[in-house]
Amino acid sequence: MDVTAEHPERSTRSPRTGRRPGSAGADTREAILAAAQRLFAERGFEGASMRAIAAEAGVDAALITHFFGSKANLLAAAIDWPFDPDRELPRILKAGRDQVGEGLVALFVRTWDREGSRHPVITLLRAAITEPSAADLLADFLRTRLFGPLLAELDSDQPDIRANLLAAQLGGLGLARYILHLEPLASAPPRNVVRWVAPNIQRYLTAPL
Amino acid sequence: MDVTAEHPERSTRSPRTGRRPGSAGADTREAILAAAQRLFAERGFEGASMRAIAAEAGVDAALITHFFGSKANLLAAAIDWPFDPDRELPRILKAGRDQVGEGLVALFVRTWDREGSRHPVITLLRAAITEPSAADLLADFLRTRLFGPLLAELDSDQPDIRANLLAAQLGGLGLARYILHLEPLASAPPRNVVRWVAPNIQRYLTAPL
Repeated sequence: MDVTAEHPERSTRSPRTGRRPGSAGADTREAILAAAQRLFAERGFEGASMRAIAAEAGVDAALITHFFGSKANLLAAAIDWPFDPDRELPRILKAGRDQVGEGLVALFVRTWDREGSRHPVITLLRAAITEPSAADLLADFLRTRLFGPLLAELDSDQPDIRANLLAAQLGGLGLARYILHLEPLASAPPRNVVRWVAPNIQRYLTAPL
Repeated sequence: MDVTAEHPERSTRSPRTGRRPGSAGADTREAILAAAQRLFAERGFEGASMRAIAAEAGVDAALITHFFGSKANLLAAAIDWPFDPDRELPRILKAGRDQVGEGLVALFVRTWDREGSRHPVITLLRAAITEPSAADLLADFLRTRLFGPLLAELDSDQPDIRANLLAAQLGGLGLARYILHLEPLASAPPRNVVRWVAPNIQRYLTAPL
């Protein structure tokens, strides 16, 4: 999974003229990624057609298949994960074993609140509802990059089922607050959401199951 | 919300001929509901067009608008809620205050497992992701028919936010087990799922927030 995809601004800033032979492929790839990021955020995974992404990028649709193979692969490459687990996990763990639940919920709520419904993980969650390959992508990121390393550091038993339960509770929070907009949860201050949900996340992380 | 919608079989059993004047409207309404139940379950809320439902019911599409107004209203009427809260809630409460979480999770898992991804609440959950009116429907049923009465019986404080948190955890469980099919959660025996999730539901029901 490409979690270091270029940020949209970068490719629009890159000069489209005067490029040397050999850099055309990289420029085209970046233009497609930038267009995909914009359209997936605006229209969702199903609503953003390959044809529309190609038009937005100013390239032939066949080039998308050439570079990325499938729409799900394009989504994987286009996702600009809003935080880098390699940087965030040590920070969360440093607060101490019993504070990890709080740190994890705070990380999700903080990054989700910043970007709202256009958040790439929300886009991916919407896509995952209807598209099994997007569901696999999301599950894969959460397990291998986030919950897996965290549970290994905590030395918790049954890490596979714990990772599923963490995904269920955090996914449900994303669903309720950012997609279904259930009130009063949707408008509650982040610190309240952390206080309400963190003990349940802590239980899935470290308590006996 | 109509939670007593006729079961599909009933309308297909009802005689289409020899009806008295005045019963035509009721027959047509039932035929539309039965067709809507089948197509929403098979194709989802977005995939089942009004035109296809009308064709399945053998009626003119204008009649659907006449009887139900909108597709979301049709969904509301067509949903055959898999359990009757008025019967289930007293049963759950009878087990004692500290067992309510277990009873609630068991109720969801039992009814979900019976019908799998064709379950009407899963259909509604999928629809709610993309359709705000379906999200309102789902939230409305959960709050007014299920969590609201339960929290009132338990005399819990902050019932509105508790209802949201219950929806987040149970919705997340539905998402993870029945839509994203996260393993090993998706294949785990129901009693294990109840053991893992019930303490978190119990906390949202009765513990101090």
